[in-house]
Amino acid sequence: MDTAAVVAEIAAVLDGRHADIRGRVRDELVPRAGMLAEVEELSRADYRERVREVLVETAGTGLTGLGFPTEYGGGGDIGASIAAFETLAMGDLSVLVKTGVQFGLFGGAILHLGTKRHHDAYLSDVVAGRLLGCFAMTEHGHGSNVAELGTTATYDPETDELVVTTSGPDAYKDYIGNAAAHGQMAAVFANLVVGGESHGVHAVLVPIRVDGSPAPGVRIADDGPKMGLNGVDNGRLWFDEVRVPRANLLNRFADITDDGRYESSIENPNRRFFTMLGTLVQGRVSVGGAGITASKAALAIATRYAARRRQFGTGEGEEMLLLDYGQHQRRLIPLIARSYALSFAQDELREQLHEIFSADPETVEEHRRRELESRAAGTKALATWHATRAIQECREACGGAGYLAENRFAALKADTDVFMTFEGDNTVLLQLVAKGLLTDYAGSFEDLDQLGMVRFVAGMAVDTVLERTSAHKLLERVRDLLPGGDSWDQEAEIRDPEYHLAMLRFREEHMLGGVARRLKRGVDNGGDAAEVFSAVQDHVIASARAHVERLVLEAFVARVEKMAEGPARELLAQVCTLHALAEIERDRAWFMEHGRLTIQRSKAISREVGALCRELRTSAVDLVNAFGVPDELLRAEDLIG
Amino acid sequence: MDTAAVVAEIAAVLDGRHADIRGRVRDELVPRAGMLAEVEELSRADYRERVREVLVETAGTGLTGLGFPTEYGGGGDIGASIAAFETLAMGDLSVLVKTGVQFGLFGGAILHLGTKRHHDAYLSDVVAGRLLGCFAMTEHGHGSNVAELGTTATYDPETDELVVTTSGPDAYKDYIGNAAAHGQMAAVFANLVVGGESHGVHAVLVPIRVDGSPAPGVRIADDGPKMGLNGVDNGRLWFDEVRVPRANLLNRFADITDDGRYESSIENPNRRFFTMLGTLVQGRVSVGGAGITASKAALAIATRYAARRRQFGTGEGEEMLLLDYGQHQRRLIPLIARSYALSFAQDELREQLHEIFSADPETVEEHRRRELESRAAGTKALATWHATRAIQECREACGGAGYLAENRFAALKADTDVFMTFEGDNTVLLQLVAKGLLTDYAGSFEDLDQLGMVRFVAGMAVDTVLERTSAHKLLERVRDLLPGGDSWDQEAEIRDPEYHLAMLRFREEHMLGGVARRLKRGVDNGGDAAEVFSAVQDHVIASARAHVERLVLEAFVARVEKMAEGPARELLAQVCTLHALAEIERDRAWFMEHGRLTIQRSKAISREVGALCRELRTSAVDLVNAFGVPDELLRAEDLIG
Repeated sequence: MDTAAVVAEIAAVLDGRHADIRGRVRDELVPRAGMLAEVEELSRADYRERVREVLVETAGTGLTGLGFPTEYGGGGDIGASIAAFETLAMGDLSVLVKTGVQFGLFGGAILHLGTKRHHDAYLSDVVAGRLLGCFAMTEHGHGSNVAELGTTATYDPETDELVVTTSGPDAYKDYIGNAAAHGQMAAVFANLVVGGESHGVHAVLVPIRVDGSPAPGVRIADDGPKMGLNGVDNGRLWFDEVRVPRANLLNRFADITDDGRYESSIENPNRRFFTMLGTLVQGRVSVGGAGITASKAALAIATRYAARRRQFGTGEGEEMLLLDYGQHQRRLIPLIARSYALSFAQDELREQLHEIFSADPETVEEHRRRELESRAAGTKALATWHATRAIQECREACGGAGYLAENRFAALKADTDVFMTFEGDNTVLLQLVAKGLLTDYAGSFEDLDQLGMVRFVAGMAVDTVLERTSAHKLLERVRDLLPGGDSWDQEAEIRDPEYHLAMLRFREEHMLGGVARRLKRGVDNGGDAAEVFSAVQDHVIASARAHVERLVLEAFVARVEKMAEGPARELLAQVCTLHALAEIERDRAWFMEHGRLTIQRSKAISREVGALCRELRTSAVDLVNAFGVPDELLRAEDLIG
Repeated sequence: MDTAAVVAEIAAVLDGRHADIRGRVRDELVPRAGMLAEVEELSRADYRERVREVLVETAGTGLTGLGFPTEYGGGGDIGASIAAFETLAMGDLSVLVKTGVQFGLFGGAILHLGTKRHHDAYLSDVVAGRLLGCFAMTEHGHGSNVAELGTTATYDPETDELVVTTSGPDAYKDYIGNAAAHGQMAAVFANLVVGGESHGVHAVLVPIRVDGSPAPGVRIADDGPKMGLNGVDNGRLWFDEVRVPRANLLNRFADITDDGRYESSIENPNRRFFTMLGTLVQGRVSVGGAGITASKAALAIATRYAARRRQFGTGEGEEMLLLDYGQHQRRLIPLIARSYALSFAQDELREQLHEIFSADPETVEEHRRRELESRAAGTKALATWHATRAIQECREACGGAGYLAENRFAALKADTDVFMTFEGDNTVLLQLVAKGLLTDYAGSFEDLDQLGMVRFVAGMAVDTVLERTSAHKLLERVRDLLPGGDSWDQEAEIRDPEYHLAMLRFREEHMLGGVARRLKRGVDNGGDAAEVFSAVQDHVIASARAHVERLVLEAFVARVEKMAEGPARELLAQVCTLHALAEIERDRAWFMEHGRLTIQRSKAISREVGALCRELRTSAVDLVNAFGVPDELLRAEDLIG
């Protein structure tokens, strides 16, 4: 099999079952590649207009509405809609993010939190890009901690209306996409007050502009220039007793009856709140996927550059290619491997999302839904951190040329930076993951803020987590998987995927058990829950990360196993091995500290990572070509040749 | 002693002996703080004009010319000029970088590479900002590898002129500051050809603009928008047989005689080349210092924000301050400690530079000059990487607010990114450091490209490096320093600075010895020098880094020891301990692998880092206030309150 065939096979594996949709998105993006350069010369206002135009045009192709029911002009395919979004991330990222705001967030809120009356009234216009809207959740005073929002929506039985008000100086909505210029309506998250009683956060549709001017009682400010994404009109919203009909409450999970009573199918207010937020998991899946795509664009540029650029010599004759330097291989190739790993993890996540959201909600167990949310949170965190790191490393690896806007790193870097923050701060998201693991997605999960979690885990720890993760049991389970018995970790083949999986599984369980024990001990010793949590927090986050890393590796190993025998599979198996060993190497101190790596083996793993980088050097360009980012979109003619 | 007094004392320690100059620079910057916001709304062309105006105004204060002789309007104080530059980095960084180009690079080339005729002709105008110029070294095809530049300057005895030509498609000068709009003259680095013979890279003054238009034979292009620093007019220069008088050769180290012969006081062409580059060490010292300042601005914003911002709760009542979260402390406080450490290392470097460049050149030993260059290279690399990392971490720690331009991270991040590349790519700089260490700054140093170095070290290794760094000798030396004899590394007090120093010294020597052995073995086994180098390159770079880390810690420990007893010293001693332990923790895998950390002690060090972060939590705001970045320049009113 020749190289081109290997690249094509791997590209097909990456495109997966949505290859067709991805191809269609590429076909939309390539003719518009010139935009990447043009927007740099536009004023912020013109850039925003340009992005709006492209958004509306793209809506016309049907590619941005794939996740909506067909009766409203959508595609009725959630998985495809995520795949399209991921691919759209190869183009201008302001277009991407505005697309996410309009269709994923604003449209998604109407679809998932609203009922037929809202769908019938708005979805066709949303899908067609005729009604542009905002997702007004975050407030200046409250980003991640949504439960504490200050905006209120008070039911007035006199007029049968909801009165939406910004209460307090920090309660204005902030960073809201589509707010500063284009949004006509907003899904406003507010504390719902009925009959004087507060029922927690609910979403209400509020028109914010009438004929292009702020609606009465609505004040709008511009967030001004940002680090990146300046084609998105982020802004601030204040509501001063803005009245909307009761019917504007997105009432899928809770409603106000005709006689003015609050009712909800979910009794527990915390569970209700988390159920509402849970329907928005799609946003996190989308952002994570977009981050992975951005990392691929950066790696494609830097790797192809390194395979052409010569610098410093052998002393005699031609200078050396950057990619022939060991350090340069070490910088780029493990990042390529990680983009592969995250892609396959994202595939599994997308499938899971598709299945759960395509199914009759009644048939989906609560447990599966929680796992999906946890996985979405964790994958988003790892994927967006990876994007930031990969783009940075690639920029540096291209030297001064990497600093010029003409080579795309400037935009990639500036635009993706906020991916680590929006749709949930990465650190907060990993805490969410840890909470799920520690409480085993217990029914009472929703009741727990992080300090509630401390108390909960401390209370249950002995029986469940501690038991499950006792060192004894752990080793027993691993021992069964690998030859070598008690010394599996020393005798396993260093390139055996089962060994890698065992290492990552061991780490995850051991860390989780440790966290549970520390929480319990802290509380047992009479510690204040806040202090106990604060002291253990880095351990909590490391556990969550270890969990997601294990899922990522499992996805990679499983995907390789599903491939037909041949050179493409052999190549990806090698990439998978590099990814696994690089992860073990990164955390080798932990493995040594916990008796799972001897000094000799730790050094051997580092040597093996170096050896794999050298082995993969000749395939590096193939591997980034298989990412399938069209050359036009790399916008780095001078670098990639 | 109250807190304000402690802050004042520490601030005075940081400002050091140039407190007066630093104060004067602050006084210039504060009234102009509004510029930080204004420039965001300017077109690129207007931003450049604004920066030029500020540069000329500042030149009028004398603060940018401190490094020039007084007879040309300068201050005659090199140390002060670096301190002024470091402080200027609190303001707009385009102003800073254009200042660096004009006075440090262009002016520096005339001062250090030229002779009296150039000084008399140009320096007064340069210092006053009347003659703006470029430092045209980097070519598109050759960034770091200056020796291979393609531009030629050929002596024509017929007309007694130098003919400057861009030879080859990649030989145009690129990324040249002041080139796209304002530069009237350039110090062009070109291969000097006299009598048909090439003499390597020399600098020639070439007028590039006449009355604002490109000079005949000179083509100028704009580098266009960049990731940051868009107030600096970077551009490209092509020379098509541009003729300048022979007198335009900057002839301090080499000249063309009246009868058209080449002559130089330095016979060896490589040594000559490195001597010329060596005079430009000031640029690296300046950039490193500016990076440290930028990290301080970011840390001041994020830390003060974390001490005000509450998010998520205790379940009862008020939410928790971000800075009370263990993870948040872990993110910010070790970075604060590292900014301190690097500041003190920078102080030593600045002093060294000042002494060597203020002395009669004849009296300075070659060896000291090489050590200065090595130290400047290494400190620049560590300082600018630190800046990038700290600014990134601080941005993330401020969430969505950190993404808005109004809170300065956008500019800080985008503007400082290229610090890792210009004045020498950080990776290449660390290789330079390693080369010096491995060859012990041998006289033949200059002859060696990196592969020459491989052969050299392989040849000499047994006698010198290997001997010096044998494990036995190493331990012997350390043992004498610390109680505990052979088990010093296990019995020393975990917070004892002597222990930290011993650990970092051991690592450095051990790594260097390892590199030397691997190089030797590779060559002895008949390996190709390029392959041997490539395989060992990451080890080479790690050694250099270990060396610089040791210097940094030594500087911190020494500075604390010089302070008077009292709470300020106690506080800084604690910060120093955190810095040292965080560095050992970061590399604890290496220390375990090399028998210098037991599993128990490795875990104890991580615990100690956590404990120190908690202990320093209450002083964190004081520590960043002592950085002395005026509030107006933090431009983050909303975050810092």
